[in-house]
Amino acid sequence: MKLPSTNRIEAFSDGVIAIIVTLLVLEIKIPEFEEHTFAGFLAVMAPLVPKLIGFAFSFFTVAIFWVNHHNFFHRIKHATWRLLWHNNLLLFFLSVVPFTTGFVGDYPTDRFVVAMYALNLFLAGVAFSMMWHYALVRSNLAGESTSLAERKREYMQTGVYGMVLYAVAVGVALIYPPAALIMLVLLQLVYFFMNSKTADVPLEA
Amino acid sequence: MKLPSTNRIEAFSDGVIAIIVTLLVLEIKIPEFEEHTFAGFLAVMAPLVPKLIGFAFSFFTVAIFWVNHHNFFHRIKHATWRLLWHNNLLLFFLSVVPFTTGFVGDYPTDRFVVAMYALNLFLAGVAFSMMWHYALVRSNLAGESTSLAERKREYMQTGVYGMVLYAVAVGVALIYPPAALIMLVLLQLVYFFMNSKTADVPLEA
Amino acid sequence: MKLPSTNRIEAFSDGVIAIIVTLLVLEIKIPEFEEHTFAGFLAVMAPLVPKLIGFAFSFFTVAIFWVNHHNFFHRIKHATWRLLWHNNLLLFFLSVVPFTTGFVGDYPTDRFVVAMYALNLFLAGVAFSMMWHYALVRSNLAGESTSLAERKREYMQTGVYGMVLYAVAVGVALIYPPAALIMLVLLQLVYFFMNSKTADVPLEA
Amino acid sequence: MKLPSTNRIEAFSDGVIAIIVTLLVLEIKIPEFEEHTFAGFLAVMAPLVPKLIGFAFSFFTVAIFWVNHHNFFHRIKHATWRLLWHNNLLLFFLSVVPFTTGFVGDYPTDRFVVAMYALNLFLAGVAFSMMWHYALVRSNLAGESTSLAERKREYMQTGVYGMVLYAVAVGVALIYPPAALIMLVLLQLVYFFMNSKTADVPLEA
Repeated sequence: MKLPSTNRIEAFSDGVIAIIVTLLVLEIKIPEFEEHTFAGFLAVMAPLVPKLIGFAFSFFTVAIFWVNHHNFFHRIKHATWRLLWHNNLLLFFLSVVPFTTGFVGDYPTDRFVVAMYALNLFLAGVAFSMMWHYALVRSNLAGESTSLAERKREYMQTGVYGMVLYAVAVGVALIYPPAALIMLVLLQLVYFFMNSKTADVPLEA
Repeated sequence: MKLPSTNRIEAFSDGVIAIIVTLLVLEIKIPEFEEHTFAGFLAVMAPLVPKLIGFAFSFFTVAIFWVNHHNFFHRIKHATWRLLWHNNLLLFFLSVVPFTTGFVGDYPTDRFVVAMYALNLFLAGVAFSMMWHYALVRSNLAGESTSLAERKREYMQTGVYGMVLYAVAVGVALIYPPAALIMLVLLQLVYFFMNSKTADVPLEA
Repeated sequence: MKLPSTNRIEAFSDGVIAIIVTLLVLEIKIPEFEEHTFAGFLAVMAPLVPKLIGFAFSFFTVAIFWVNHHNFFHRIKHATWRLLWHNNLLLFFLSVVPFTTGFVGDYPTDRFVVAMYALNLFLAGVAFSMMWHYALVRSNLAGESTSLAERKREYMQTGVYGMVLYAVAVGVALIYPPAALIMLVLLQLVYFFMNSKTADVPLEA
Repeated sequence: MKLPSTNRIEAFSDGVIAIIVTLLVLEIKIPEFEEHTFAGFLAVMAPLVPKLIGFAFSFFTVAIFWVNHHNFFHRIKHATWRLLWHNNLLLFFLSVVPFTTGFVGDYPTDRFVVAMYALNLFLAGVAFSMMWHYALVRSNLAGESTSLAERKREYMQTGVYGMVLYAVAVGVALIYPPAALIMLVLLQLVYFFMNSKTADVPLEA
């Protein structure tokens, strides 16, 4: 018995994504503190707050990518070389997220740092979108009986509108970083709730 | 052949938890020492002792979560989107454990640091408890023929009493940290021995 | 039901390779910067550029190893002890890549550092080549009906020519490092495009 | 379809061990160097040599544990709670190896540091031995038709003699560290070649 050909791509991706979400916390260094009062504790924790928020946000962003990756590969019937490399490109951009997250946690008000973080998420989104277009529109690796027009419409709805908004967030960051950060949070919430309509439907069905 | 729909959640969780328990040791830095006598070695190792105890304790705590996670998913017949996200929430709180463990290893007598560590374990426990309630009480994703009342009783016994004691530990930490640390150890021992009655029963049966 | 005997080798290799590609980014430290202008940002990012290029290059190099590893094990019918250890040797040389990559990112013009990096890739290539020779030429663990001569020819084409070029790159690095870096990039591109002819062929077929 | 009950233990163990062998390299820090001559390069690399040897040795030691773990679980028909925890104890001692390896790499001539490293390998060996005794002697989880006496003899040969020698190495380290390091290397070579008699036998058979 041989496992399905998508099995190792999923296992490898799971590994990479699991490491990314777990490495994020390594960017939060244990602070030194002297004065063991509540005021002293708060003073020590205060500079960590942007780091912690960045960590939590990136954790859930990468987790959303993982959930979508899971759903995407559940539909794929067989892998191809081109699919492997589309996936590797996605994993590459995701693997930079701990770096850009740590950077934005240190300098949450700097426009270039926030723009770089938004650009990172944009590029990961573009890579996912390209993989989707290849596998589910152009090549129909899912072997579904839907028409090309239907598959294109689904592709536009799933990925393309989001990409445009990510690109806008990069531009907004260069003008007013807090607005870009709020945009990124809202975008993730949209992605999060997009799948929530079928929240209790068995994933295998 | 497609693997069961819980397979990738388990694989991803295994990855995240495996990384968490292994990253814990990274918080223990190699000390510098000059005087290569037994007294010199002890002097160098002494400040590492709370770190090592914290590492060992967190390793076993996260391992207990993993064992319970393993048993939990063994019962689940199919995954849903909501189950995925309950699980992601649990993994999020577990992924903070290396940070809070390192922190409590550096400041084992500070009440706020100990309270934060207890709070971390409490929140991980709450996330597990919520996942259990969703999957085994409300939705019966295990497809078991037990009544709702029976499932509720099992849920109360497994998770809820423990959560209350974790919450108490957070409060105790703010008054007298050593008592909270002892409470946490006792709680883990209870969780550990809870499953030991069926220690030699094949897990598949 | 027992999984195929190559399953755990693949899972372990996936884990090691997933960690290697993700650890690479840890070598890129978050810089400190004061002047929050575009000029200030560029000044801070400039020294990171060789690190980022090195990270991207090593990511894709290790990913190419992973893709070839995936294709290789897809053909293997059963594992042996000797195959396990050939694979462990390959993983050993790959696991040094984050160190040599970080080193070359810090000193991209030093001939000895570049030679060490080329040597690292050469040794990983040799290990893969030895594994290939053992499994697909000498022992035919794939159980294919091709003749020994055909298997030898495939082996020479797949691995041996590349090894010679890697060895040359080590020598070139000692004379003129930039030429060696360009050679390494070209070599990876050749490896990359070598499999692209069958880019859309289902991998299971 | 549910995967065999040992599947997740193996996946979790693979993850932990994969991370351990890959984290080892993180202990080797990229050195700073100024003088870009061969003499300058050697001067910079010289202090890394014990670290690199320690890294290579621990990589292969943990890899030997992994190979034996692989062979061990291949025989196990079903998992039990007690088996899970024997395995977790083994993983715990293995997860300390990056720390003790880095320590011995920094102070390869210190008797207490070398003794601690030998002790770590001894304890990992004891944990494996205990797991073997539980699963293959006392409980026969492999469901093999061999007699208790045969299983006991195999157990003694596989693990117990090695443990005694590890314990001796701890003692030797306290008297003359280089002799202990040589003993550890020889012990690993014995473990390595112990399985080499069946090097080309399909592992599934």
